[in-house]
Amino acid sequence: MKTDLSYFFEPKGIAVVGASSDKTKGGYSLLKNVTRGYRGPIYPINPNYKEILGIKAYPSVSAIEGIADLALILVPAERTPKVLEECVSKGFKGAILENSGFAEVGSRGKVLQQECLSIAKRGGMRLWGPNCMGLIDARKGYAFSFMIPALYDGLVIKGGISLIVQSGLVSAGFLFSVMSRQRLGLAKVCSIGNKADITEIDLLDFFLHDPDTKVIALYLEAFSDGRRFYELAKSSPKPITCLKGGKSAAGAEASLSHTASLAGNYQVIRGALSQARVFEAHDFFEMMDIAGALEKGFGGRHAAFMPGRVAILTFSGAFGIVTTDLLEKYGLTLAMLSQSTIAFLHRLSPDWMPVSNPVDFWPAVEKNGPVLAYRDGLSTLYADPHVDGVIIHLFTGSGAWHFDPLEIMAGIKDREKPVLTLLFGPKDEVEGQRRRMEEQGWPVFEELHRLVRTMSLLLQQR
Amino acid sequence: MKTDLSYFFEPKGIAVVGASSDKTKGGYSLLKNVTRGYRGPIYPINPNYKEILGIKAYPSVSAIEGIADLALILVPAERTPKVLEECVSKGFKGAILENSGFAEVGSRGKVLQQECLSIAKRGGMRLWGPNCMGLIDARKGYAFSFMIPALYDGLVIKGGISLIVQSGLVSAGFLFSVMSRQRLGLAKVCSIGNKADITEIDLLDFFLHDPDTKVIALYLEAFSDGRRFYELAKSSPKPITCLKGGKSAAGAEASLSHTASLAGNYQVIRGALSQARVFEAHDFFEMMDIAGALEKGFGGRHAAFMPGRVAILTFSGAFGIVTTDLLEKYGLTLAMLSQSTIAFLHRLSPDWMPVSNPVDFWPAVEKNGPVLAYRDGLSTLYADPHVDGVIIHLFTGSGAWHFDPLEIMAGIKDREKPVLTLLFGPKDEVEGQRRRMEEQGWPVFEELHRLVRTMSLLLQQR
Repeated sequence: MKTDLSYFFEPKGIAVVGASSDKTKGGYSLLKNVTRGYRGPIYPINPNYKEILGIKAYPSVSAIEGIADLALILVPAERTPKVLEECVSKGFKGAILENSGFAEVGSRGKVLQQECLSIAKRGGMRLWGPNCMGLIDARKGYAFSFMIPALYDGLVIKGGISLIVQSGLVSAGFLFSVMSRQRLGLAKVCSIGNKADITEIDLLDFFLHDPDTKVIALYLEAFSDGRRFYELAKSSPKPITCLKGGKSAAGAEASLSHTASLAGNYQVIRGALSQARVFEAHDFFEMMDIAGALEKGFGGRHAAFMPGRVAILTFSGAFGIVTTDLLEKYGLTLAMLSQSTIAFLHRLSPDWMPVSNPVDFWPAVEKNGPVLAYRDGLSTLYADPHVDGVIIHLFTGSGAWHFDPLEIMAGIKDREKPVLTLLFGPKDEVEGQRRRMEEQGWPVFEELHRLVRTMSLLLQQR
Repeated sequence: MKTDLSYFFEPKGIAVVGASSDKTKGGYSLLKNVTRGYRGPIYPINPNYKEILGIKAYPSVSAIEGIADLALILVPAERTPKVLEECVSKGFKGAILENSGFAEVGSRGKVLQQECLSIAKRGGMRLWGPNCMGLIDARKGYAFSFMIPALYDGLVIKGGISLIVQSGLVSAGFLFSVMSRQRLGLAKVCSIGNKADITEIDLLDFFLHDPDTKVIALYLEAFSDGRRFYELAKSSPKPITCLKGGKSAAGAEASLSHTASLAGNYQVIRGALSQARVFEAHDFFEMMDIAGALEKGFGGRHAAFMPGRVAILTFSGAFGIVTTDLLEKYGLTLAMLSQSTIAFLHRLSPDWMPVSNPVDFWPAVEKNGPVLAYRDGLSTLYADPHVDGVIIHLFTGSGAWHFDPLEIMAGIKDREKPVLTLLFGPKDEVEGQRRRMEEQGWPVFEELHRLVRTMSLLLQQR
């Protein structure tokens, strides 16, 4: 079943309730953001203005003349029910409550939230939030959110990852900003706050059918319907990664006051996520790393089971050794290379150089030049049936080392096994090469720890 | 006992054996690096040139006219004994062998290395290396190394951390570059390779007496003299951090071919490091993080025992929750705040906001502005006797959030408890603020994982 949420993502007209021309207010950022990408009719609602940002303002939702089916609401919590009544009268299909002061602040707020929900239900309208940041569609350039533009301007890269974030209004903005900063290719970002009505289940279902979404990443403090989540995830053809907040007893207690969530028994959740083949992350950066690798086509849903035997191609003995130590830490093993692989690599190396895994390839590079040595070395390791994933440490720099890393990666034609690269060299040089590699679908890291952890997630060694 | 190694760090004259005017050769980078900072006499040695880089060249060490006590050697391995004989004849005190082809390549190389060692011992000269990258003195601007300048140019910040790196010639350069990139304040960096003569013990002893060195960080694949290391470390007034390569069985095997090292029994080593209060890191970035915090005066040698009770001051519920989960992962606990602390924080917050740890302070910030709320909140948490360390998540950005984080930190006058900051906001803004905070001695992070891991190391919960 595909959930129809199209009026949230592609509304016919938007009422911005609580719009303001005061630049220090959220109501200003909200209206400003909406106007930047959305091309349909926009109705700022505020009885104190005739116009805001050059757009005609209305004293109330009831006063709107024209077409609208979505309300973005950022007024004090207690005024929300009246606004919703008007939205229902006007035939709105959805409302995003970006204000706070509901279930997350105690019993009075809970009553208020319930009241809003009843109004919406009676009127056949869906509620998103409250206590949330709304949504962003990176591909269309929509930002139905009051997030400060400076937090994401120039950072958003269009791509295939859609995020679902259960988190308060502030947190969601920051999460989004963290994500953007990592050069993740984003499709849609949804902050669902208290989940009074719209939950992660609705959005997961929606994203499973959304052609822009290739990978789904979730930050959740509680599961609204664990069984349904499990069923959707298990049958999903798209890879899913999840960071569960409130795993520890203390963290669970904190999440109760954050989004009024009961965090649930983590051991049970963990088992279910693993069974449903959801990639579980433990930190925001870990979630970004795995989402990035999944978007590039590695570790897909139907990848064959791989016991986690890894080959390391390195220019640095020390890097190879520390990587090997980290493999053990994360439950992976060093691959025992085939005899034919060793023989081939030995031919690329000087005679005196013994070949084993990790493959210390500096001498081979000095003998053959970096492109030939690494390209042939990599494709040989990749083809070895005893290898489930390849880690390469690549140096690109000045002089003889000024080459195109994509020439090296050209030896790999498919995405059957993860190939994760640590790219190293003079700072500016690396930044440009890194961007090019990622654009061509190669995950690039600068920390061994994060690289190995991502490899362990991709190889299902959780 | 203070080891006299002054002729390595402050030589009276330097012979660069194997200097070259061919820019693609290590012998070019080596000479070039030496000339960039060192102001004493320099003697390029190469029979094929009359001068190199405008400096008079000599056909051999024997031909030098003038004062010199240090040789930097980068000729093919088999020619090394002859060069050393000449150095001895000339009365040199030390030689740094930056060439490879010795013990790390097998039995023939071992014999050669032993021959070199015998010549040096007979002549009363000390050997550094072979298979190493030499040394860098960041404060003096010396680079007695053939490392490509592009790898560290513009990256070196002068400071109090001295590094000892046992690693091959290539690796050492990369390690140094990684270090520099993290804005660590560096004093001296030493790559000791195969440790034929000079070992980590000599350098540890030297650094314990070196006034420029405040913190010592080591990457070691093997301990040359475990007992002596333990004794020096245990009695050291300066904090020490160590990353041991070859912890796993597979990693140990790899280190055998890398620097001909026997990695030793890791469980025994781990216990000894812990007893000697050496901060053990498991990744290069972890080592840098802990070294940076130590250099800023946190977690000093004489800090009282702290059971690891942490307070979290945050603007984001989700960040607080995930940080709490990570505390548990790394063996720390959430502090139970004193009643007086809670009462004080409650006065800073709106009435409806319940206060608990993690302290979700966005409402307090909206009520009082960021500087007042955070400064008073931080100093109150810091003063609480039930708190051993404080984590703050700080947002600095545009509009009302454009403030000076140092005004917030000003409430903390000493370094009795670790205060680690996650700084967040628009990218460019953050970079500038981050630099200012670090210059004033506040460790700043962008990843929760690395922040919490550093806190756990500082609080001795290893």
